Amino acid sequence: MTANRFAKTLKAPYYAVIFTNQRTGVDGEGYNATADRMVELAQTMPGFLGVESTRDETGLGITVSYWRDEQSIANWKANSEHTSARQSGNEKWYEHYELRVAKIERAYKGPR
Amino acid sequence: MTANRFAKTLKAPYYAVIFTNQRTGVDGEGYNATADRMVELAQTMPGFLGVESTRDETGLGITVSYWRDEQSIANWKANSEHTSARQSGNEKWYEHYELRVAKIERAYKGPR
Repeated sequence: MTANRFAKTLKAPYYAVIFTNQRTGVDGEGYNATADRMVELAQTMPGFLGVESTRDETGLGITVSYWRDEQSIANWKANSEHTSARQSGNEKWYEHYELRVAKIERAYKGPR
Repeated sequence: MTANRFAKTLKAPYYAVIFTNQRTGVDGEGYNATADRMVELAQTMPGFLGVESTRDETGLGITVSYWRDEQSIANWKANSEHTSARQSGNEKWYEHYELRVAKIERAYKGPR
């Protein structure tokens, strides 16, 4: 039941985009619809491996998406619908964010 | 005000430990005290660069800690108080977790 909110434990190397963000209080409905749509859209992209996402009651969220390689991330960044969503994010949805692109070197799961 | 929940935008490369976890409903008080203590302790470790952490109302949490290099992560893993906390995590606090070690290749912040 909870396992579907985890990405699979894949064989490294692969890539992660770590997106830590603080929401403004603005446009919750528009934000939620777009966030859901972005997950749906990402799943159609070549090289998409999974996503993990959570947010607390203060609006601090962390979303980590996983990708086969750098080219997959570049293709996702270039997607026009995603580009439009990022623009709205910059304009109204995020008070602050940090985005990091990382190469996964090893992965474990548990409890052991 | 919210900025203190973000790690700094550091110059890559550096390392991240991405810990995605689902809490059991068990021992919230003990868990919270230990989680706070682990952040306090990590800050004293050589090579610790920062941490970002959030959890939603269903108990799905993502904590990303940042480290200068692999040796810093190995030292943190070997710390005895941290090892004891991980054991409690395996025994009672986590229903499931995925842990990934990654090399940060580039980082941005926003909004732009």
